[in-house]
Amino acid sequence: MNLFVDGDFSWTAFLDSVISAGLKIGLVLLVYVIISPIGKRLISRIINGAGNKQKLSEGRSKTLERLILNIYSYVLGFILIATLLGLFDINLAPLIAGAGIIGLAIGFGAQGLVSDVVTGFFILLEKQVEVDEYVTAGGMNGVVEEVGLRTTKIRSFDGTLNFVPNRHISTISNHTRGNMRALVDIGIAYGENIDEAMAVLQKVCDEFQQDERVTDGPNVLGVQSFGSSDIVLRVLGHTENMQQWAVERDLRKRIKEAFDDAGIEIPFPHQVNIYKKEDE
Amino acid sequence: MNLFVDGDFSWTAFLDSVISAGLKIGLVLLVYVIISPIGKRLISRIINGAGNKQKLSEGRSKTLERLILNIYSYVLGFILIATLLGLFDINLAPLIAGAGIIGLAIGFGAQGLVSDVVTGFFILLEKQVEVDEYVTAGGMNGVVEEVGLRTTKIRSFDGTLNFVPNRHISTISNHTRGNMRALVDIGIAYGENIDEAMAVLQKVCDEFQQDERVTDGPNVLGVQSFGSSDIVLRVLGHTENMQQWAVERDLRKRIKEAFDDAGIEIPFPHQVNIYKKEDE
Amino acid sequence: MNLFVDGDFSWTAFLDSVISAGLKIGLVLLVYVIISPIGKRLISRIINGAGNKQKLSEGRSKTLERLILNIYSYVLGFILIATLLGLFDINLAPLIAGAGIIGLAIGFGAQGLVSDVVTGFFILLEKQVEVDEYVTAGGMNGVVEEVGLRTTKIRSFDGTLNFVPNRHISTISNHTRGNMRALVDIGIAYGENIDEAMAVLQKVCDEFQQDERVTDGPNVLGVQSFGSSDIVLRVLGHTENMQQWAVERDLRKRIKEAFDDAGIEIPFPHQVNIYKKEDE
Amino acid sequence: MNLFVDGDFSWTAFLDSVISAGLKIGLVLLVYVIISPIGKRLISRIINGAGNKQKLSEGRSKTLERLILNIYSYVLGFILIATLLGLFDINLAPLIAGAGIIGLAIGFGAQGLVSDVVTGFFILLEKQVEVDEYVTAGGMNGVVEEVGLRTTKIRSFDGTLNFVPNRHISTISNHTRGNMRALVDIGIAYGENIDEAMAVLQKVCDEFQQDERVTDGPNVLGVQSFGSSDIVLRVLGHTENMQQWAVERDLRKRIKEAFDDAGIEIPFPHQVNIYKKEDE
Amino acid sequence: MNLFVDGDFSWTAFLDSVISAGLKIGLVLLVYVIISPIGKRLISRIINGAGNKQKLSEGRSKTLERLILNIYSYVLGFILIATLLGLFDINLAPLIAGAGIIGLAIGFGAQGLVSDVVTGFFILLEKQVEVDEYVTAGGMNGVVEEVGLRTTKIRSFDGTLNFVPNRHISTISNHTRGNMRALVDIGIAYGENIDEAMAVLQKVCDEFQQDERVTDGPNVLGVQSFGSSDIVLRVLGHTENMQQWAVERDLRKRIKEAFDDAGIEIPFPHQVNIYKKEDE
Amino acid sequence: MNLFVDGDFSWTAFLDSVISAGLKIGLVLLVYVIISPIGKRLISRIINGAGNKQKLSEGRSKTLERLILNIYSYVLGFILIATLLGLFDINLAPLIAGAGIIGLAIGFGAQGLVSDVVTGFFILLEKQVEVDEYVTAGGMNGVVEEVGLRTTKIRSFDGTLNFVPNRHISTISNHTRGNMRALVDIGIAYGENIDEAMAVLQKVCDEFQQDERVTDGPNVLGVQSFGSSDIVLRVLGHTENMQQWAVERDLRKRIKEAFDDAGIEIPFPHQVNIYKKEDE
Amino acid sequence: MNLFVDGDFSWTAFLDSVISAGLKIGLVLLVYVIISPIGKRLISRIINGAGNKQKLSEGRSKTLERLILNIYSYVLGFILIATLLGLFDINLAPLIAGAGIIGLAIGFGAQGLVSDVVTGFFILLEKQVEVDEYVTAGGMNGVVEEVGLRTTKIRSFDGTLNFVPNRHISTISNHTRGNMRALVDIGIAYGENIDEAMAVLQKVCDEFQQDERVTDGPNVLGVQSFGSSDIVLRVLGHTENMQQWAVERDLRKRIKEAFDDAGIEIPFPHQVNIYKKEDE
Repeated sequence: MNLFVDGDFSWTAFLDSVISAGLKIGLVLLVYVIISPIGKRLISRIINGAGNKQKLSEGRSKTLERLILNIYSYVLGFILIATLLGLFDINLAPLIAGAGIIGLAIGFGAQGLVSDVVTGFFILLEKQVEVDEYVTAGGMNGVVEEVGLRTTKIRSFDGTLNFVPNRHISTISNHTRGNMRALVDIGIAYGENIDEAMAVLQKVCDEFQQDERVTDGPNVLGVQSFGSSDIVLRVLGHTENMQQWAVERDLRKRIKEAFDDAGIEIPFPHQVNIYKKEDE
Repeated sequence: MNLFVDGDFSWTAFLDSVISAGLKIGLVLLVYVIISPIGKRLISRIINGAGNKQKLSEGRSKTLERLILNIYSYVLGFILIATLLGLFDINLAPLIAGAGIIGLAIGFGAQGLVSDVVTGFFILLEKQVEVDEYVTAGGMNGVVEEVGLRTTKIRSFDGTLNFVPNRHISTISNHTRGNMRALVDIGIAYGENIDEAMAVLQKVCDEFQQDERVTDGPNVLGVQSFGSSDIVLRVLGHTENMQQWAVERDLRKRIKEAFDDAGIEIPFPHQVNIYKKEDE
Repeated sequence: MNLFVDGDFSWTAFLDSVISAGLKIGLVLLVYVIISPIGKRLISRIINGAGNKQKLSEGRSKTLERLILNIYSYVLGFILIATLLGLFDINLAPLIAGAGIIGLAIGFGAQGLVSDVVTGFFILLEKQVEVDEYVTAGGMNGVVEEVGLRTTKIRSFDGTLNFVPNRHISTISNHTRGNMRALVDIGIAYGENIDEAMAVLQKVCDEFQQDERVTDGPNVLGVQSFGSSDIVLRVLGHTENMQQWAVERDLRKRIKEAFDDAGIEIPFPHQVNIYKKEDE
Repeated sequence: MNLFVDGDFSWTAFLDSVISAGLKIGLVLLVYVIISPIGKRLISRIINGAGNKQKLSEGRSKTLERLILNIYSYVLGFILIATLLGLFDINLAPLIAGAGIIGLAIGFGAQGLVSDVVTGFFILLEKQVEVDEYVTAGGMNGVVEEVGLRTTKIRSFDGTLNFVPNRHISTISNHTRGNMRALVDIGIAYGENIDEAMAVLQKVCDEFQQDERVTDGPNVLGVQSFGSSDIVLRVLGHTENMQQWAVERDLRKRIKEAFDDAGIEIPFPHQVNIYKKEDE
Repeated sequence: MNLFVDGDFSWTAFLDSVISAGLKIGLVLLVYVIISPIGKRLISRIINGAGNKQKLSEGRSKTLERLILNIYSYVLGFILIATLLGLFDINLAPLIAGAGIIGLAIGFGAQGLVSDVVTGFFILLEKQVEVDEYVTAGGMNGVVEEVGLRTTKIRSFDGTLNFVPNRHISTISNHTRGNMRALVDIGIAYGENIDEAMAVLQKVCDEFQQDERVTDGPNVLGVQSFGSSDIVLRVLGHTENMQQWAVERDLRKRIKEAFDDAGIEIPFPHQVNIYKKEDE
Repeated sequence: MNLFVDGDFSWTAFLDSVISAGLKIGLVLLVYVIISPIGKRLISRIINGAGNKQKLSEGRSKTLERLILNIYSYVLGFILIATLLGLFDINLAPLIAGAGIIGLAIGFGAQGLVSDVVTGFFILLEKQVEVDEYVTAGGMNGVVEEVGLRTTKIRSFDGTLNFVPNRHISTISNHTRGNMRALVDIGIAYGENIDEAMAVLQKVCDEFQQDERVTDGPNVLGVQSFGSSDIVLRVLGHTENMQQWAVERDLRKRIKEAFDDAGIEIPFPHQVNIYKKEDE
Repeated sequence: MNLFVDGDFSWTAFLDSVISAGLKIGLVLLVYVIISPIGKRLISRIINGAGNKQKLSEGRSKTLERLILNIYSYVLGFILIATLLGLFDINLAPLIAGAGIIGLAIGFGAQGLVSDVVTGFFILLEKQVEVDEYVTAGGMNGVVEEVGLRTTKIRSFDGTLNFVPNRHISTISNHTRGNMRALVDIGIAYGENIDEAMAVLQKVCDEFQQDERVTDGPNVLGVQSFGSSDIVLRVLGHTENMQQWAVERDLRKRIKEAFDDAGIEIPFPHQVNIYKKEDE
C-alpha cells in the first residue's frame, strides 16, 4: 500500500488499490467457494469406494471419512486466510519465523499426537482389531472395548480398563482370528514304558477328538524333552477360538485320571543322596 | 524511513511517514481490538459446547477453557507486537535468526513441557482418570490426588506422593472402571481325587455367590496346571470395585477351612530321595 | 498481475497478461502430458527388467510396479499444481512455511509410515520371506500369512495372528531356507564308561541315518560338558526342513530305549549328604 | 554506507548518514532505556503476585525472580546489539548462518542444560520437593540437601551425596507428604487355626492403636496368600511420617512374642521326602 | 521470459531469448558431456588404486566401484536437470520447499537405508567379514553366506537363514581370524591333594601338545576358584580355528578317564545336614 | 566490485572502491583491535570474581578462564573473517549452505563432544567431584584421577583406569562428602529370646561408640525382617569417611564373638522334613 | 551474463564480461594458490607442536596430521569450486536445496561415521588405549590389536577378533595402566575361631609379600560378610599388571594347603533338618 510514494497521499492510487484488492479478494473467495465442495465430494466418494473394496463396516468408514474431511477443511481454511493476508502485504513470514521457536517445541511435543492418529488410522483401515476381540497390544492383554484414532481401550481380564495411546502399539497380537492351540506337556517317570504311556495318552486324545469345541487333534507328539526327574510327553490339538483354556483344563483332568487308572505315575522331583560320615 | 534519500533531510517525507505510520498503527490496533474479544467468545462457546457433548464436569471444562484462552492471548499479543515492529522496518528476521541457536536449544529443551501439556490435555478431555481413582500410570501405582496439565499426582498405598510428569504416562491402567476379578489358585496333592476337591471348592463358591460384594461367580474352573508337587485348581469370580482383595482373602480362608473339614491336604513340596552308599 | 502500475487500469496489460498466462499454462500442461506417460512406461520397463533379473514372482513385481507408479503420479501431480500456482504469483512459500509447523509434526509423526514402506519394499525385493514360511521377525515367531508394504502378518503356532509393522522388523530369521539341525544332549552318570555310552548312542544314530527325513548324520560328537550330576554327551544331525522337531523326538525316544537295553542310567540330580549331630 | 555511489566521495551524504545514524542510535537507546526497567518491574510484580498466590516461600520466589530477570536482561541486551549492528548494515545473517553449523552442535549439546533448567523451574514452582524431605528421584533415594535450577543434591542414607541433573528426574516420589503405611506379613503353619492366629494378631494390633506414632490401625486384614510352607497373614496400619520403619520393627517384635506366648509357630520351609531304595 | 514487458509481444525479445536459451543449453550439455566420462574414469582409477593398496579381492572392488559410479551418475544427472530448469526460470525452490514436508518424512524414513549402505560399505572396505567365516553380528551367530550393501546373510548353526540389515550390526565378532582358545574347568573334591590332581591334568595336557589341531599348550593354570563343593582347576590351550570345540570335547573325555585311573573324584554337590528333633 | 557496469572499465570507480575498501577494512580491524582485549579483560574479571564467590581453587578457575577465553577468541576471529569477506561481496551464504549437508552430519556427530564439554564445565563449576574422591559416575566406581572438560578418569579398586566421557555421566554419587553409614544385619534363630540378643548386640555397640573412627552410634534398631530360618536384627552407626568398611568388618567380628560368648546361635538354613513311604 | 539486456546481442558486453570473468578467476586461483600451502604448513607445525607437548608417539601424530590435512584439502577444494561457480551466476543454492532431501537422509545416515571419527580422534589424542593393552570397550573385553579412526580391533581371550566402531565405545576401561588388585574371599565354618583363621591367612600373606610379582600386600582385611553356612574372610593385595590372576591362583592354592595343615575347614553348605512324621 505505497500511498505515500512521492511524499503525497494519492487518492487515485488509494482507490485503485482498493478496487484491485476487492477484485483479488473476490477472486480468491470465488476459487475457495468452488474448490471446497468439489474436494469434499471427491474425498467422500474415494473413502466410500475404498471402504466398499476393503469391506469396512459402515461405522468405521464413516469415522475415517469424518477424519479426512476435518483435515481437509482445516488445511483449506488455513490456505484461504494466508492467501488473503498475503494480498495485503501483511507478510506472514517474519510472524511465522518468530513463531518458529515455539513452533519447534510444539512440533516436537505434538508429534506423539500425530503418531497416535497415523497408527490409529491404519489399525482401523487394516482392521487389525475389532471391538470385543481378545488382543495383546502395547504390553496390555485383554478384550478391546474401543478403537479410537488416538487411544485404544483394552479391558484386562482382571477388570482394569487400559487406555493405550496408539503410538505405543507396535505389534498387535490378535488372539481372536482363528482356531487356537491346546497344548499339554506331561511328565512320566524315567522308569515307565514310553510306548505304554503314549498309548494311554492317545486314548484320551481320541475321546477328545469327538468334542465339538475341538477342531483338530489332539494327538500325542512324542518325547519333548528329558527333565531332571521325568520324561516329558507332549499332547497337541486345536480348538475353537477362546475354548483353548477350557479344553486344556479338561484334557489335564482326563489325562491325570487315565494315568491313575493305568497306574502311571507323574513323578515328583528326584534326588540321589549319597551319605558320608562327618569324619571322612 | 528513507528520510535522507537525496542526501537532504526531507520534512515533508518525515511528516508523511509519521502520519502514514500513525494510520497504520491505528489500523492494526483497531483490527486487534475487534478480533481479540470475538475470538475469545468463540473459543468459550466451542469449549462449552464440546464440554456439554462430552459430559465434562464444570471444573474440568473451566480448566480447558482457561488453558486455551491463555494460549490464544499469547499468540495474538505476539502477532500484534511483530506486526507493529514490522511496520517500522525494524526487521525481526535477523533478530529471530540470531536467537535461533539459543532457540533451538530451548525448543528441544522445552519440548518435554509441551509434551506434558498435550498429554495432560487428552487425559483430561478423554476422562482417562478422575481424582480418587486407583490407577497405574508412569510406573506408579496408587490413588490419583490431582490431574494437572503438566503433572499428575498419585498417592501410593504406602503413603508416598508421586509427581508424574504427564509425558511419562504412556498407558494408563485404570483399576476403578468396572467390576474386578477375584482369583484364587489352590494346589491339591497328586493323590487326591480331583472331582471331590472340585466339589468342595464349588460348595465354598456357592456360599460366596450370596455375598453382596460379589457380582459374578465365583466358580471352579478346573485343573489349571500340574505343579511339581501339586495339582493346581482355579477359582474365579468377579466383585464390586476395590472389593476384590477382601473377597480373595475371605475366599482363601474359607477354602482352607473347607479343605480341613473334608480332609483334603494342601501339599508341601515333595521330593523322592534315592539312597546310595558312598562306596558305590 | 500489476494492472494498476500507473494508478490506472490497463486493459492492454490485462489482455497481454491473460494471453501470456494462457500460453504459459498451455506450455506447462503440454510438458506434463508428454512427460507423464513416458515416465510411466519407463518405470514399468525398468521394474519388469529388474523383476526378471531378480526372478521375482509375477504378483510380487506387480505390487512393486503399482507402488512406484503411484508415487510417480503423486509427485508429478504435485509439481504440476505448484508450477501452475507459481505462474500466477500465488506464492506458495509463505503458505508452505506456515504449514511448516504442522508439517514438522506430521513429518515426524509419519516417518514411521515411510519407514514401514521402505523396509517392506526391501523385504519384498530381497525376497527375505515368502508366504507360508516359518520365520522369527519383530519378536514374533510363526508362519507368514501376508507380506504387505506396511505390515507383515505372522500366525503364531498357538493360533494368534500378529500384525507386525515392517519398521519393527529388524533382523528376519527365516527358518525355512535349508536343512535344519537336530540336536539331542543326553546325560550319563559319572560312573558310566564314556566309550560304551558313545557306542550305544552311535548305534542309534546309525539307524537314523537311513531315515529319509534325515539329510546328514546324526552322529555322536563327544563330551559336551560336565554337569553337576551327569556327563553330557551330544548327538547332532541335520534333517529336512520342519522335520527337525519330529526327528529329535524320535531320537530321544530311541536313545532312552537303547540306554534301557544297555543298562545305562540317565542320572537324577545327586547330592552328597554329610551328617552332623546338633550338639556339634 | 553508499558514500561512493557515483564514484565520488560525497561529504554531504557522509554528514547526512552520520546525523541519521546518530538519530537512529539515539532512538534505539531511548527505547531500550524506557522499556528495560518497565519490563523488570512488571516481571517482579508478576512473580511476587504468583508467589503469593502459590504460597511460595520468600527464598524460593526470590530464586525464580532472579532467574527470570537474568533471562530478560540477556534477551534485551541481545536485541539491542543486533538492532544497533543492523542499523549500520553490518548484516548479521551470514555470520549467524556461518555460525549455524557450530551452533547446531551447540544447540544439541546444550539442550540437556535447558532441559535441566526447565525441569528445575517446575520442581521449584510446583513445590514437588523441599530441602530435608525424603524422596526418590532419578533413581536416587535419600534426603534432599539442595534443589537447584540445574542439579538436585540428594543425600543417600549410606552417606553418599548424589548430584542428580534435573533432566534425569522424571517422576519424583516424595515420601514426606503424609502418613506412611506400616505393613507386616507373617506366615503361620498350615496346621494352625487361622481364626485363633488372627485373634492373637489383632490383640497385638489393639495395643499399637494406643501408640502415638500410629495414626490409623493397625488391623489384621486376613489370609494374603498360600505360601509353599505357610499361610501368610497381613497386618496393616498407618503411622506418622518417617515412623513407619520403627513401628514395623516394634510390631514384628511384639507379634513374635505374642505368637510365642500363644504357642503359634512361624514355620520353617517344609518338604515331604519319599524314600526309594536304589535298586528300584 | 519477460515477453510482455511493455504490454506488447516482442518478437525480437522472443528470438533473442530463444537463441540465448539454445546457447545456454548447449553450453550446459557440453560441460556435462565433458565432465561425465572424466569423472567416471577418475573414480575407477582411484577405486582400483585403493583396491590394490588395500588388497581387496577383484569381486569386492568391482562391487564398490559399481556403487560409487551409480551414485556419481545420479548426482550428475540431478545437477544437469536442475541446471536446465534453472535456465528457464522454472524456479525449483518453492517446488522443493513444498516437497519438503513429504521429504522430511522420507528423509527420516530412509535414513535407515543410508545407514545400512554406509555401514555395509565399510564392512566391505575394511574386510571385517568374508563369506564362509563364522561371526557374531547384530545378535546373530553363524556362518556368513553373503555380505551385501544393505543386508548381511548369516546362517545359524541350527539351519536358520538370518537377514541382518547392516545398520543393526554394531560390533562384529569374527571367530575365524586366528587360533582359538580351548578351555576346560574341572572340579575336584576339597579332600583331594591339589598338587596330585594338577600333575594328572598336566600329563593329559602333555599328550594333547602332540595333537596337530593344537597350536599352543594346553597347560594347567592352577586353582581358578573355590566352588561350594569343589575346587575348580583350569586347563587352557589354543587350537587351530574351528577345532576348539572338538579339542575341548576330547580333553574332557581324556581328563575324566585319567581322573578315573588316578582315583580322583569329580564331586557331586555336598551338603552338611544337622538333625534336630521336632520338639526342640 | 561493479567495475564493468556500463561495459567499460572505470578507473575512477576502481580507485574509489579500493579506497572505500581500504577504509572499510581499516574500520573493521580497528573495531576488532579495540573490542578484543576489552572482552578478554572483562571475561577474566568475571571468572575471577565468580571464582572467588564460588570458592573455586586457583587451578580450577584458571581452567575455566582458559576455556572461555579460547571460545571467545575463536568466535571473534570467525566474525572478523566473515565480516572482511562480506565487505568484498564474497558471499559466504551459498558456501555455507553447500557445506550444510556435510555440516549437518558433523553437527550431529560432534554434538557428543559439545555435550561432553557442557557437562564437564558444570562438573568443574559446581565442584561435584574433586581429584582423589571416591565416586560412582557413568556406571564406574572408583577414585577420581582427573576431571577434564571431555573425559573424567576414574581408577577402579581393581586397578583399572576408566576413561568416562562426561556426557555419559548422568548422576554423580560422591561417596567422600560426609560421614558414612556402617550397617550390619545379623540373623538369630527363631528360638532365641529377642530382647536378650538385642542386649548383647547393644553391648557390642556401646564398645564401638568409643571408637574414634565412629561418629555416631552404632545402635541396635530392632527386628528388621523375618527370614525363612532366622530373625534379622539390624545394627546401624555412622563412621568417618572411608572407614565404614573397616568398622563394619570389626563390628561383624565382635558380634560373632559376643554371640559365641552369650551362646546365641547364628542359624543355618532350616527345613522341616516329613517322611513318606513310597507305597503311599 | 545479461548479454541480451536490450534485446540485442552486445559484443562489447560479452568481451567485457569475458575479461572480467578471466580477471576474477585469476584472482580466485591466486588466492587459493597462496592460502593452500600456508594453511598446510601451519597445520603441520601446530600438530607437531601439540604432539610434542602431549608426548604423542611419532606414528600417532603422523596419523592425526594426515587426517587433518585431508579434511583441510577437501574443504578448501570445495570452497574453490563453489566460488568459481558462484562467479558465473551458476547459482548453487537451488541445487543444494534440491539435494537437501537426499542430503538429509545422508546426513542422518552418515552421522554415525562422523561420530566414529570424532570419538576415534579423541581416543588417539588422549592416548586412552595403546596397541597390546588389555581393555574393556564397547562391551568387548580383550587385547587391542589396532586403534583406527573408525574402528578399534580388539582380540578377545578366546581368539575372536572384534571390530568395534568407535561410536559404540562409550567408556574405555583400560586394565593395563597400573598395578592390579589380587582379591581372595575365603569362607570358614561358623564354629572356627576367627582370630586363629586370620592368623593362618596372614602367615600365607606374609609369604607372598616376598613374591616379586606382588607390589603391595597381600593382607587379611577381616570378616567381609556372614554367609548362610560360612564366615567370609577377605585377603587383598596388589600385583604387577597382568599378574593378578596368577597370584590369585597361587594364593588360593597356598591358603587351601595352609588351612589343611591348620585343620581349618572350608565348609560345605549347611542345613538344619527337623523331622516330622507324616501323621502330624
